[in-house]
Amino acid sequence: MVQNKAFIYKSIPDGWPVPGKDLAVEDITFDEDGEPPKGGFTTKNFYAAYDPSQRGRMRDLSIKSYSPAMQPGKPVVSVSVIGEVLKSDTPKFKPGDTVILWSHYTESYSAVDESEVERTQIIHPKTVVPLTAYLGPLGMTGMTAYGSLHEIGQPKKGDMILVSAAAGAVGQMVGQIAVREGLHVIGSVGDDKKLDFITKELGFTSGFNYKTEKMSDAVKRLAPDGLDIYFDNVGGELLDVALANMKDFGKIIACGAISTYNNGSNTTPYGIKNYGSVVRKRLRYQGFIVLDPNIRQWQEERDANVSKWIADGSLKSIDHITDGMDNAIDGFLGMLKGENLGKSILKIADP
Amino acid sequence: MVQNKAFIYKSIPDGWPVPGKDLAVEDITFDEDGEPPKGGFTTKNFYAAYDPSQRGRMRDLSIKSYSPAMQPGKPVVSVSVIGEVLKSDTPKFKPGDTVILWSHYTESYSAVDESEVERTQIIHPKTVVPLTAYLGPLGMTGMTAYGSLHEIGQPKKGDMILVSAAAGAVGQMVGQIAVREGLHVIGSVGDDKKLDFITKELGFTSGFNYKTEKMSDAVKRLAPDGLDIYFDNVGGELLDVALANMKDFGKIIACGAISTYNNGSNTTPYGIKNYGSVVRKRLRYQGFIVLDPNIRQWQEERDANVSKWIADGSLKSIDHITDGMDNAIDGFLGMLKGENLGKSILKIADP
Repeated sequence: MVQNKAFIYKSIPDGWPVPGKDLAVEDITFDEDGEPPKGGFTTKNFYAAYDPSQRGRMRDLSIKSYSPAMQPGKPVVSVSVIGEVLKSDTPKFKPGDTVILWSHYTESYSAVDESEVERTQIIHPKTVVPLTAYLGPLGMTGMTAYGSLHEIGQPKKGDMILVSAAAGAVGQMVGQIAVREGLHVIGSVGDDKKLDFITKELGFTSGFNYKTEKMSDAVKRLAPDGLDIYFDNVGGELLDVALANMKDFGKIIACGAISTYNNGSNTTPYGIKNYGSVVRKRLRYQGFIVLDPNIRQWQEERDANVSKWIADGSLKSIDHITDGMDNAIDGFLGMLKGENLGKSILKIADP
Repeated sequence: MVQNKAFIYKSIPDGWPVPGKDLAVEDITFDEDGEPPKGGFTTKNFYAAYDPSQRGRMRDLSIKSYSPAMQPGKPVVSVSVIGEVLKSDTPKFKPGDTVILWSHYTESYSAVDESEVERTQIIHPKTVVPLTAYLGPLGMTGMTAYGSLHEIGQPKKGDMILVSAAAGAVGQMVGQIAVREGLHVIGSVGDDKKLDFITKELGFTSGFNYKTEKMSDAVKRLAPDGLDIYFDNVGGELLDVALANMKDFGKIIACGAISTYNNGSNTTPYGIKNYGSVVRKRLRYQGFIVLDPNIRQWQEERDANVSKWIADGSLKSIDHITDGMDNAIDGFLGMLKGENLGKSILKIADP
């Protein structure tokens, strides 16, 4: 047995997860001399993605949702982990393969469940594309952005789009894709460093810091004629402001509501008041998750375009790396607090 | 000059319209010996439809919406008036034609504007179809119900649908059409007489009185597995309850929000808290108005089916008649308060 540090989900948080009580890093050990599980494989892991949707899975087991609740006492689940196959009992993989798997924040991992083998994919990293891009633009994050923008937003050249959490993993992708497609892109962010990042580094048309300018003033200032599309990562007050500023037949892409995820059981969530706009302006306000068929149908186009754009340097994949399993909790909470510029990733080991 | 009583919009209401202050009935006179306006026509009117959307047009002139604000000092505008042509200077109509026009609550009327001539239609009443059906099932109300249910709701046999304001003009139509198409139809109403009406007379599968049973209890009791479609005429708390009870990929047809229309300037509207369901359940929440092309494309099918259903007695067109221009204000306020069973109509004169 060797050390196998893991980021453990201890108990269901009420509001913000509390380190030590709800989350911990512990050694769960790994048998490096053992056989791989029958029909499965073992891995050594390099990177694991953080994603706001993980907070939604830290819930009472009786509450249904699109992805199952996490099991207290087990390692935290990541939507995407990049690792290398150590031993394999399935013809699908051989030792040394680089794979992207739905797995846990662990230094090493044994995959046994048939569905886990099924959804694990070999990747063939290209020298022009960084390995972590498979957790970002070429992973679930990029698929989320590309698929929903096109499927629900139906963007046309010249459209005015507002993107919330614009410096985050999905926001930075949506904004860059929209800029490439000829839209006017406004980004909403929570500090001035992020405002510089989206406007100067990522090429957004404009942006505002919602902590220093009233949201409704900022949206009216930057989109005086209204919004064709609002890409909503946050919910809450900005959703209300967007509803009040949509043009007729506008689209609201409901991707997330991070402003509500860490409300405790005693918190009254912000109530949306401007939903009357949905009728008056004939809006379409639609949710999705990346696994839905109408979103996944964009995968081939996404793969082709985004690979090309990364390779030619016209789309940037910015990572926010937390280094080492010992810092896994900080990386997770930082992502929930919006401290990241770009995609939040835990680096577990050097590839 | 002869008497020409009219229902007059005097001033912009703040909250509930106040008779005498905001609304009045006055004689504006009519020149029965004069020529018709050039290119236009004059009518004697029989019926005028009431519609909740009229309240939305009693607003500050600077607030844009899909239909123009009403002009204080002028007669109240009705979406549909049925009258008979008295004199005509347009080849489109001859004296004695029965017409349906976008006009005002007046005993007689002169139409001069070219667009008014354009949108006035001759109707050829059938003996099996009552004249007022052209204000209800075969008018804008029926088009609203039929078009949006099919275009946005995409109903399938066996679907569970909740209809709010179910005894109202649009609600009674949506429910009856949905029953005919094999859906399980739950109606929400505000008194027990309406509950009897929708379940016993109109054939809804079930219903509840939201004033005597907690909305969330009622919806869970009648749709324990959740809702495929919610047809929203009211907004407010029931919209929140519906959001919490939708199935994955459910549709919310945003037709109206009458619970908010008479909020005064000092009233905080009910805030919707369960919008997170839009993401988690991948809902589609979409507004429309009856003039939108995607709704109007259903007109031919509506005309054919609804005429047939009325003729064979399988669809009922229930009217709530207010008799006489002197009672026009009572009829309007009664409709806003939901006192009507079926379509609210002002009878101006015998046809």
